[in-house]
Amino acid sequence: MSPQALEAALRQIGAERYHILHPFHKLLHGGKLNRGQVQAWALNRYYYQCSIPLKDASLIGRATDPDLRREWRRRLSDHDGDAAGEGGIARWLALTDGLGLDRDYVISTAGILPGTRFAVDAYVRFVRERSLLEAVASSLTELFSPTIISERVSGMLKSYDFINKDTLAYFNARMIQAPRDSDFALDYVKREARTPGEQEQVLAALRFKCDVLWAQLDALHFAYVAPGHIPPGAFVPKS
Amino acid sequence: MSPQALEAALRQIGAERYHILHPFHKLLHGGKLNRGQVQAWALNRYYYQCSIPLKDASLIGRATDPDLRREWRRRLSDHDGDAAGEGGIARWLALTDGLGLDRDYVISTAGILPGTRFAVDAYVRFVRERSLLEAVASSLTELFSPTIISERVSGMLKSYDFINKDTLAYFNARMIQAPRDSDFALDYVKREARTPGEQEQVLAALRFKCDVLWAQLDALHFAYVAPGHIPPGAFVPKS
Repeated sequence: MSPQALEAALRQIGAERYHILHPFHKLLHGGKLNRGQVQAWALNRYYYQCSIPLKDASLIGRATDPDLRREWRRRLSDHDGDAAGEGGIARWLALTDGLGLDRDYVISTAGILPGTRFAVDAYVRFVRERSLLEAVASSLTELFSPTIISERVSGMLKSYDFINKDTLAYFNARMIQAPRDSDFALDYVKREARTPGEQEQVLAALRFKCDVLWAQLDALHFAYVAPGHIPPGAFVPKS
Repeated sequence: MSPQALEAALRQIGAERYHILHPFHKLLHGGKLNRGQVQAWALNRYYYQCSIPLKDASLIGRATDPDLRREWRRRLSDHDGDAAGEGGIARWLALTDGLGLDRDYVISTAGILPGTRFAVDAYVRFVRERSLLEAVASSLTELFSPTIISERVSGMLKSYDFINKDTLAYFNARMIQAPRDSDFALDYVKREARTPGEQEQVLAALRFKCDVLWAQLDALHFAYVAPGHIPPGAFVPKS
């Protein structure tokens, strides 16, 4: 496969498997959820957000190329910021604050769904244990994130009176960061995946990552969309 | 043990086991080595230098506390810099350049001693696999590095005409970075090691790290100090 064909195959995976196609996303940006359901989404998604630096640092910790380490270090800065209260995780907490969730409860991750935890932990483990090429490739869902973010932001601002621009500040930053990061990662896998076996690994890594995102919305949908089957111990919205 | 007693016990380990006591260090800073022997030291030590960001990023990749991650990220910046040619690893390569070693050969690590590789790899693995407390504690040899660095720099500048201030620039930066980093790590272990078991883990981690540094000088001494037993494949100085 040529690098161009590999890119086309990656984009095809996005077209078929990215969580923009999930019914829960459609409900979320379509204004069809109530405040409790949006709280559940933000609460669970926090676990994904706060795990991202762990997977990124784990990747850096396996990268013997200083250029790759330097490039990937920007992701750590983006998520953790340079001081307390800065960065993507802090911006996500501004969202959960804005939704009226108790911050300590969010940070404890005590109320997240088991399905969220298993999916996110599987992602961190994947990045720690698979080849560096697969670890980089698993970030490539960022290729597709500008579209889902713009749908989500415009739909949520329009539909929910408990959402405003400030609480969605996380996504403004991601609209700049994600394309920059995915450009780098896409160039990397197009350059480094030379054999058919490596190219198949890259494609499989992106499918895996789409599954990680999809499974999180599955868990939310099953638990919080009517009829709703909330597992023991998980967040129960106040009605 | 009180935090103060723990600190005293840590400092006692340094007084007894830090590689400032190793005969190879005494030869190095005492001007008793020839250029080939100093080359062998710098070549082997490069493997330690280039592995440091891997262990630091691996530690960040296990730290769920954003404050700890932000603090530790400075170590990544220190070693990798913000662009190619900057940072501690680049400064170490200025030293090996100045000693007349081929840069590609140094970076390949093809000529290092097996003893160097095993010791350094053991350190990276320790930080990846042990508790976060032990991982932090294993950095505490930095408590003792200002003394060895100042001995090394002044001794080497005085004794060797193939060494100058520019080639030793690595150590100037470390004189500032190491105390800052070790202050943080010392506070961390004094605060976090609460049980006798945790305190013993901290002490054992520092002993382990002293062994890592000591074993590297053992390997150099055995291979390159007369009579000298250079293993197959390792760097052979031109006489």
